[in-house]
Amino acid sequence: MDFIVDNLSVNENGNLTFAGVDTVSLTEKYKTPLYLMDEDKIRNKCRTYKKALEENFKSSQVLYASKASSFKRIYEIMAEEDMLVDVVSGGELYVALKAGFKAENIYFHGNNKTIDEIEYAVKEGIGCFIVDNLYELENVDAAAKKAGIKQRILLRITPGIDPHTYEAVATGKVDCKFGSAIETGQAMEIVETALSCKNIDLAGYHCHIGSQVFDAQPFVDCAKVMIKFSSDVRDKTGYSPRVLNLGGGFGIRYVESDEELDIRSCIAELAVAVKAECASCGLEEPEILMEPGRSIVGDCGITLYTVGSIKEITGYKKYVAIDGGMSDNPRYALYSSPYTCIVANRANCKADYLCTIAGKCCESGDLIQEDTCIQTPQSGDILAVLSTGAYNYSMASNYNKIPRPPIVMISGGRDYVAVKRETYEDLIANEL
Amino acid sequence: MDFIVDNLSVNENGNLTFAGVDTVSLTEKYKTPLYLMDEDKIRNKCRTYKKALEENFKSSQVLYASKASSFKRIYEIMAEEDMLVDVVSGGELYVALKAGFKAENIYFHGNNKTIDEIEYAVKEGIGCFIVDNLYELENVDAAAKKAGIKQRILLRITPGIDPHTYEAVATGKVDCKFGSAIETGQAMEIVETALSCKNIDLAGYHCHIGSQVFDAQPFVDCAKVMIKFSSDVRDKTGYSPRVLNLGGGFGIRYVESDEELDIRSCIAELAVAVKAECASCGLEEPEILMEPGRSIVGDCGITLYTVGSIKEITGYKKYVAIDGGMSDNPRYALYSSPYTCIVANRANCKADYLCTIAGKCCESGDLIQEDTCIQTPQSGDILAVLSTGAYNYSMASNYNKIPRPPIVMISGGRDYVAVKRETYEDLIANEL
Repeated sequence: MDFIVDNLSVNENGNLTFAGVDTVSLTEKYKTPLYLMDEDKIRNKCRTYKKALEENFKSSQVLYASKASSFKRIYEIMAEEDMLVDVVSGGELYVALKAGFKAENIYFHGNNKTIDEIEYAVKEGIGCFIVDNLYELENVDAAAKKAGIKQRILLRITPGIDPHTYEAVATGKVDCKFGSAIETGQAMEIVETALSCKNIDLAGYHCHIGSQVFDAQPFVDCAKVMIKFSSDVRDKTGYSPRVLNLGGGFGIRYVESDEELDIRSCIAELAVAVKAECASCGLEEPEILMEPGRSIVGDCGITLYTVGSIKEITGYKKYVAIDGGMSDNPRYALYSSPYTCIVANRANCKADYLCTIAGKCCESGDLIQEDTCIQTPQSGDILAVLSTGAYNYSMASNYNKIPRPPIVMISGGRDYVAVKRETYEDLIANEL
Repeated sequence: MDFIVDNLSVNENGNLTFAGVDTVSLTEKYKTPLYLMDEDKIRNKCRTYKKALEENFKSSQVLYASKASSFKRIYEIMAEEDMLVDVVSGGELYVALKAGFKAENIYFHGNNKTIDEIEYAVKEGIGCFIVDNLYELENVDAAAKKAGIKQRILLRITPGIDPHTYEAVATGKVDCKFGSAIETGQAMEIVETALSCKNIDLAGYHCHIGSQVFDAQPFVDCAKVMIKFSSDVRDKTGYSPRVLNLGGGFGIRYVESDEELDIRSCIAELAVAVKAECASCGLEEPEILMEPGRSIVGDCGITLYTVGSIKEITGYKKYVAIDGGMSDNPRYALYSSPYTCIVANRANCKADYLCTIAGKCCESGDLIQEDTCIQTPQSGDILAVLSTGAYNYSMASNYNKIPRPPIVMISGGRDYVAVKRETYEDLIANEL
């Protein structure tokens, strides 16, 4: 049987296996809802990115964009894989440091870092700020001065590229809360200001075009814009970037119709364009950074639920209700995100039951997927939702006071708990 | 100066006051982001509902739909106000019980209660289940049998009324994950099944038409459908309901254009229709229950943020960034919900600065409001977002590892902490 992700299969009992392990047995051991992650596949993804960049660029680094899924164990894995990470808040920085991740290998992202967060990061010796705007530049300069250091930064530049993805995750466009736009002259302004700051070491530029990109072309377009901008800055100020961070955004497969992206050929195509553009502008090839997040962990995770009520509304839809929902996966409620669902204990049956997967939150919009085909389910069955490794645990809430599921990792066929299941007691830890 | 909610004013320093207290002083004491709630106003809302129902119906009860905002202190307040509450999960039930709320005064809602939750509620002696579907009916009957009791229930019936509100919260329509529809014959079927269950005491029916309803008419229409259904059931089986729970859904003001709803006249209008319909069907007037949630707490809360970067993208929008966002208030990201924003330390200035309020989460869609007019802000100012008392704390996440804000209550001009601010340590309490 073919699945959209290569670590899925069906065993002799007709049960779905994930990373070689029977998913139904795991639910007996850990209960549901349950997040599973495939550690070996995560490590392979890191290696694929690192190798592709090393093969194609003179100098490169890969950052895991940890907002996709941020928990202590993932930072340990990234450290072991010689990855850098980026964090987007003081909280993510705290977790990374608690996991023993070296501050010098951390990049700090975000459109509105608070002064407290900036001072905390400087104090910890963070490797680099990706500075979003002039106000932040001032604050980083001041914090560096206070600490008596010169702080390394990249500037987030808005290239004005729309990767033709859905609006909520399209961040390379000019009208966006992130960065300084080239088109408006504000990018040039912030570079000149950064160069004049005594406590700032401007290492180069960052850009990010959006998410779920399945094609090298938007990255190529973006790189060309950034190199042309670098050349314009050089002509005006004499400054050339040592580093160019081209962001993340590589797509993963959520459903059959998502194509399989070949990361290596995509990066090779990008490298050809970068080298040609640098040569044409007379710029030295900078160190290239990329920041995959979703594409490192997204299709390395699945969520397992127990099926509860099954409601066939005569003349309307069929609703299959599960014991989780928008509290552990708000992405359908937020973006109408596509997902593939499989009845894990009937994985060898035909998926011809057209239904809507409803969560247990007390809200009509709490759905995981509408009008999707699964194996004909019965109450008590296990439902697997695929490609939930990114933006599920990280976005989970306690809506309806539902405890968040645990994360169980699988490595070499062995399962272990990376994040414990929340308890009812945890829910009121801060309630007086 | 006029505000959309009557507990807001401006003091001699030009600062916004909430429940008589200077909001800017509160941010100095508690930091930002900060949820504030007006306890006295919450109590008044409870009394208004109770009085309106008592004046107009022979017998009535008001339930606070606690999913709107569920935390220990709110259940204490509801107990003191002689309110009943409804909960939608084992977690909410746990919190209510921990707050000392009597189990017999709790109603258990939800489209997919798990068997564990049902058994937990039966064991605690819950007052009533609002049973959603046949599968749940079976499970409640079994749990009651196991416990050796007869369990009181209401059946959730789908009346087929669309209150013309936005889809995600329109729950009275037939094609919906909740309840059993009259139109399809499934409502009649579940009533007959319930009547045949040995361990079930069917007290009556429940229905809910949706949220943000500003008009008695949808409630009147719904009540008529439910009474007609009750009469049809009586004709077929001889059973008449003792209780009719007409749900919640009364609207609150988020923005100037939302009308002020007169709860008392709305309920009076509803009562006239209920009495007339009962008389016409020859049914005894049942005890009437209503379940306000948002309309009890929604406009009794505001959120205070600190303004960070202010970005004027030449030729495009102005973005005002705050130190919170979709992690503490996901409602704009989820539903494009309208909100009114005020620069709290410039509340006496003209609100003529057209801008978009952006959160600090690393996501383009993390906005609190687009194209809204506020007082011209400066970095470091305090921004108040109004009417955040419902579905903010309850829906908050740790997205981007951002700690959830505290809830500070105001009563009689005194402020006290009801929920403590989350710490970075709390974020990794379950991470191994």
